[in-house]
Amino acid sequence: MKPYDFTLEMAVRDYECDMQGIVNNAVYQNYLEHARHECMKKVGIDFKSYTLMGIYFVVVRAEIDYKSALTSGDAFVVGLNLIKETRLRMVFYQEIHRLSDDKLILKAKITATALNQQGKPEIPKEVDAILKKHFLGAIARQ
Amino acid sequence: MKPYDFTLEMAVRDYECDMQGIVNNAVYQNYLEHARHECMKKVGIDFKSYTLMGIYFVVVRAEIDYKSALTSGDAFVVGLNLIKETRLRMVFYQEIHRLSDDKLILKAKITATALNQQGKPEIPKEVDAILKKHFLGAIARQ
Amino acid sequence: MKPYDFTLEMAVRDYECDMQGIVNNAVYQNYLEHARHECMKKVGIDFKSYTLMGIYFVVVRAEIDYKSALTSGDAFVVGLNLIKETRLRMVFYQEIHRLSDDKLILKAKITATALNQQGKPEIPKEVDAILKKHFLGAIARQ
Amino acid sequence: MKPYDFTLEMAVRDYECDMQGIVNNAVYQNYLEHARHECMKKVGIDFKSYTLMGIYFVVVRAEIDYKSALTSGDAFVVGLNLIKETRLRMVFYQEIHRLSDDKLILKAKITATALNQQGKPEIPKEVDAILKKHFLGAIARQ
Repeated sequence: MKPYDFTLEMAVRDYECDMQGIVNNAVYQNYLEHARHECMKKVGIDFKSYTLMGIYFVVVRAEIDYKSALTSGDAFVVGLNLIKETRLRMVFYQEIHRLSDDKLILKAKITATALNQQGKPEIPKEVDAILKKHFLGAIARQ
Repeated sequence: MKPYDFTLEMAVRDYECDMQGIVNNAVYQNYLEHARHECMKKVGIDFKSYTLMGIYFVVVRAEIDYKSALTSGDAFVVGLNLIKETRLRMVFYQEIHRLSDDKLILKAKITATALNQQGKPEIPKEVDAILKKHFLGAIARQ
Repeated sequence: MKPYDFTLEMAVRDYECDMQGIVNNAVYQNYLEHARHECMKKVGIDFKSYTLMGIYFVVVRAEIDYKSALTSGDAFVVGLNLIKETRLRMVFYQEIHRLSDDKLILKAKITATALNQQGKPEIPKEVDAILKKHFLGAIARQ
Repeated sequence: MKPYDFTLEMAVRDYECDMQGIVNNAVYQNYLEHARHECMKKVGIDFKSYTLMGIYFVVVRAEIDYKSALTSGDAFVVGLNLIKETRLRMVFYQEIHRLSDDKLILKAKITATALNQQGKPEIPKEVDAILKKHFLGAIARQ
């Protein structure tokens, strides 16, 4: 899958671990979301600003393969590639690797869209233009 | 998908909503996990007890289709069917419906296994026996 | 402290426990907040509705004494008394007891106020009226 | 309160904001805990290692004054001073400031102790020695 369009380094915080001593499944979705939002922010698409305008970016499908577990103190990197698979669907292919040994922790395919102020799926034009400018995968598929 | 092997009623708590005013994606995984654990507890399989023995129930794959969103105050029901798809894989088909109008909020397919004290996939024999006793879907497929 | 103005029964969910196998400190604040919001909703003050109007109920000070810990599967009750200590300060005295043995888990004193649309502290008049109608402690102190 | 014994820079993640668009109260406790654990780890006291030995560091009292709110994208610094107030009580004085304008977000006084394998309060001797070596406030008060 490498090289990635975007990568973000993070580290596990103790409160994210559950009674098994490993990061709880749901927390990985937080990590993945944070990486997507940071990626978008970097190219000029700010989640909060759109939310305040009444335009909601939403996940419509998540597929996550858990390969191994992170634990307290682990540093890791979230890698991300963006493909615009249809006019209305942005697909984020995301992987998490532990930094110490490059071990694959999980692979995810997250499909997102945007809802306009009427609640209908619609990717804002300026978002589309930004995606095409910054992501190869946003050009080919539409 | 109905009727379900197990259902659990819950309600959204305000702290589970994000800046869009709706339940954050990751929180649904908490709801789904809680319903699975309650279902297992009901038939005598306690997550914590196994964790203390060093036997870890783990999710290996999650597929979640988000159909609609829950918001503050919504009451909902998590329905669940269990299929033992292979010797080592328990598959939970889960749906969330809003109670007020029975609207489908999400559908999920969660594949889980257990890791023994050596970290190898192995469903404990007594767990297998309990599953066969309580879930039709645990009998047919192996 | 009993009898309480309001009580709410809840139960620990496994994902709320941390690597020590007990409920993480921050999670108790979620429990306390949920009980306050449910109490307010019961008398007709809905947190979400006020948020949508741009009126924010906020906590200005929290004092929490952790006496014992909850763990997986524990059922518990959150008890709450409301005192309006000054014109602008609502104080919630809250306790959590485990249901199985009535053991005191924590005591908290949570001081809250409301911010108007200009961000200035101001308890809406209708909120004040509701509090006086439903809580003895909202009458005496102002 | 400055200068601090330890500081940690962090940034708000979108999923930590609630429907008011600001960081939820309970999340600040996560920030504070993470800063304490990182501080301890830096001097050689690893929370997870002690947990695995059956020695639990626990918070017995939290006092938090919320002065202002963080929102999406805010970078901030958690400052921390440690005072060993009694033989069994470690007190962490913590402050959070927003980095962009140094605005004080909150002040906290977190009192912690350790529980030995019998569940009795006892600070391990080697922990005490480390605290005395690294924190001025750990020397004076006992």
